[in-house]
Amino acid sequence: MLVIFGASGDLTARKLVPALYNLYKANQLPENFVVLGVSRSNMTDGEFRRKVVLESKFLEEKKKGESLDFINSLAEKFFYEDLGADYNLEYSKLATRISDLNNKYRTDHNYIFYLSTPPSLYEVIAKNLSDQELNNEEKGWKRIVVEKPFGYSLGTAKELNRGLQKYFKESQIYRIDHYLGKETVQNLLVTRFSNSIFEPLWNRNYISHIEITNAESGGVEKRGGYYDTSGALRDMFQNHLMQIVSLIVMEPPIDASALEIRNEKVKALKSLRIMRDEETLFKNTIRAQYLASEIDGETVKGYREEEGVNPESKTETYAAIKFFVDNWRWKDVPFYVRTAKRMPTKVTEVVVHFKSPHHQVFKDSDMGNKDNKLIIRIQPDEGILLKFGVKVPGQGFKVEQTHLDFSYSDLGETVVMEAYERLLLDAMQGDATLYARADEVEAAWDFVDPILDYWENGKDVNIYGYSAGVWGPSNADDLLEGDFKWRNPTESLVDNPGFCVIK
Amino acid sequence: MLVIFGASGDLTARKLVPALYNLYKANQLPENFVVLGVSRSNMTDGEFRRKVVLESKFLEEKKKGESLDFINSLAEKFFYEDLGADYNLEYSKLATRISDLNNKYRTDHNYIFYLSTPPSLYEVIAKNLSDQELNNEEKGWKRIVVEKPFGYSLGTAKELNRGLQKYFKESQIYRIDHYLGKETVQNLLVTRFSNSIFEPLWNRNYISHIEITNAESGGVEKRGGYYDTSGALRDMFQNHLMQIVSLIVMEPPIDASALEIRNEKVKALKSLRIMRDEETLFKNTIRAQYLASEIDGETVKGYREEEGVNPESKTETYAAIKFFVDNWRWKDVPFYVRTAKRMPTKVTEVVVHFKSPHHQVFKDSDMGNKDNKLIIRIQPDEGILLKFGVKVPGQGFKVEQTHLDFSYSDLGETVVMEAYERLLLDAMQGDATLYARADEVEAAWDFVDPILDYWENGKDVNIYGYSAGVWGPSNADDLLEGDFKWRNPTESLVDNPGFCVIK
Repeated sequence: MLVIFGASGDLTARKLVPALYNLYKANQLPENFVVLGVSRSNMTDGEFRRKVVLESKFLEEKKKGESLDFINSLAEKFFYEDLGADYNLEYSKLATRISDLNNKYRTDHNYIFYLSTPPSLYEVIAKNLSDQELNNEEKGWKRIVVEKPFGYSLGTAKELNRGLQKYFKESQIYRIDHYLGKETVQNLLVTRFSNSIFEPLWNRNYISHIEITNAESGGVEKRGGYYDTSGALRDMFQNHLMQIVSLIVMEPPIDASALEIRNEKVKALKSLRIMRDEETLFKNTIRAQYLASEIDGETVKGYREEEGVNPESKTETYAAIKFFVDNWRWKDVPFYVRTAKRMPTKVTEVVVHFKSPHHQVFKDSDMGNKDNKLIIRIQPDEGILLKFGVKVPGQGFKVEQTHLDFSYSDLGETVVMEAYERLLLDAMQGDATLYARADEVEAAWDFVDPILDYWENGKDVNIYGYSAGVWGPSNADDLLEGDFKWRNPTESLVDNPGFCVIK
Repeated sequence: MLVIFGASGDLTARKLVPALYNLYKANQLPENFVVLGVSRSNMTDGEFRRKVVLESKFLEEKKKGESLDFINSLAEKFFYEDLGADYNLEYSKLATRISDLNNKYRTDHNYIFYLSTPPSLYEVIAKNLSDQELNNEEKGWKRIVVEKPFGYSLGTAKELNRGLQKYFKESQIYRIDHYLGKETVQNLLVTRFSNSIFEPLWNRNYISHIEITNAESGGVEKRGGYYDTSGALRDMFQNHLMQIVSLIVMEPPIDASALEIRNEKVKALKSLRIMRDEETLFKNTIRAQYLASEIDGETVKGYREEEGVNPESKTETYAAIKFFVDNWRWKDVPFYVRTAKRMPTKVTEVVVHFKSPHHQVFKDSDMGNKDNKLIIRIQPDEGILLKFGVKVPGQGFKVEQTHLDFSYSDLGETVVMEAYERLLLDAMQGDATLYARADEVEAAWDFVDPILDYWENGKDVNIYGYSAGVWGPSNADDLLEGDFKWRNPTESLVDNPGFCVIK
């Protein structure tokens, strides 16, 4: 049984139910599977079914061509219970309802509690579930799934962890990071550890630096109020990008178990060199905000003009961080990671830059900035590109860069699961590999916390401006110690007008 | 000035003149360039021009859409001189003609003597040229280009070398191997030495074995008489395939000069472990002949039924050799090289097989025969394919093999020179990089000679049969120490009926 707290919210209708729909359609849900929605709103089972299944606009596409019987058979698996104003009352009523459904549908006392609520409610809900012995695994398993943001800082993350761990064992807690549900993110592990050709090159001897870009073309949209209290570093970097970093940095695990993979990821995150002094932070971090601009003839608001955003906000919509990893494999290899909104295109990619050949046999060939690169596209156009030099036809040995490429779409018919589908199924099956463990989350915050603190409280920390639709402030290259140019996956939509410091 | 001996022969009309045509069209010939054809036939300049230029069927395609002026301007660069029956007379007349042309066209006493004649004439021609001081480089350079076959055995190759070297310095002798003129063959060097990612993997630590296939779909055609005295080992293996082997095996040269590249190639060839005892030769070599068959409904002759072939011939049309390279880089890495006629398809490719990952992290993934491979296509569809494992979308970590690929045709408009074009231009410019040096040719013969000797004189050496149109005798896999299956680039045209020993 999946019990969703905050079931009247956006995530349930937009992500969870469509994922359940796909799993149901693919026959991957247990036959006796039921969903109990829980929230503060007053709704009947029927109203809930209509809201999230029968009349949901998020299922419109999927339902095309499906029989009414099929749709109804899914809808009938949905139930609803309201819990009163602050998720702190009537848990005995909820426990009875769960028990009734369990008896009726023989769900073997196996429950997932999915907390799609503000994090401030996590502990309250956990405590109340515990009071009703709904954390007790004597009969059937009990798992609790929590959504990001998992903490606002190292301190709050620890508090959240302790709050949950008072009532649930760590092995019962599933911290979801939907980036880990992405095939291309998981494929980082397979690329590295199922092939014999990449791992020998995957270290400081052959790699000069690593670049990770997460670009969104959209702005904050309707999330201005929330985003302004968060920012790019908390919203994307601390979770999704740190997860990608950990998969690139990690040592080969003993095996593919959740325990071993997560052990290695924690070790990887703990090896990031934490920046503490202002000079280092000044040199290696940049924040910026998008400014009003015109994109394709349409006027686009600046971040400070967005609904819900403080007109004097210093929250970053662009963050670029350079850092090092202090371990045997990566010593002195710089990592450049950036995440931003209102970029020219939507793309997430990892670029592994290999060193130049240490001896130039073909001296007349200008390789310039043409060293070998492995580009792993997380989204969109998921795939892998290997850039290398070939001989230009003709006399002598002139070398040009070309590439080998593989696109996930080449795999043809294989249906790629949505991240939430995969993660829900894993939670049901008790596979926590793709969920973040407490120490993992805390190790990521350990690294991010001093940057956030510096940006909020440091002396004269600039926030730069960039026109919506360009690749961030034009000084981002220089600021990262002046030694690096970002690879911008496509051309800018508009010319970069330079940069300015926002007062 | 290009002086072609054997100018009335097939090679001149089919290869040399079309190459010259392309160079002329691309403005790559010196303005004062002239060709003097020499052979035993009686012809006027005009007749020679008609034969090889004006009425040549090998230029028909190229001449389409060209002006008559253009064609004539090329034809006027062609002259002819006949030399009498055995290339041993009237060199004074030839010398005078060369001198006259030189004076008239101001070719600066720079002459290439291209010997498109049987090898038995090489020394005679060299001697006579020397008698006329046409090897003298006091005024202008003199170069002598010789065609394969360069020797019939180690002994004859040495004789040929000594015969030429009596009259010309080694630096004046250009031994042509048109495989070296192929872009994809030269690209082997660039792939290895202009990239930082391949060379670290290019050794016994990461490579399990290397496979080279040269398959022709045709039979011996009109060359039966010649072929029956030669065979696959002499015709393809000793020259073209050994050249490819040397480029794969060689150490990085100091620079891209002819001297350094050829030094490394010789060193590579000298490091091949020569097989001398019958047991080793029995285990590591296979020869076979194609048998009559039906391909696409058409009856195809067996080798022994071909025109000019001895009906009891034991000449091989299929040769497969397994060998080792005794040096620091390649110790214990087997090389499997085969060449054959009447295969299902025409293809030349190198397959570098990498070792399996030494530790299987993802145990449930059956990689089977799916180790990483780098496939370099020499012809056709010139390109590079890198086979590696990716995650199969879905739960767990199932791994499937896919590939990154690059095709030379991706380079678009770049005109790829024909092998002969490139090589003629190099000879004119004195770049011998892509020509075989005497010690190179002899090192290749050193390796091949004992195999030929064993096949000819060994006790009970079988010659197997295979139906025309299949991938050789079906026991070829087992014979090579039973440890290897060939990668057959495409499916067989017909089912392999097994094998038989030919009496």
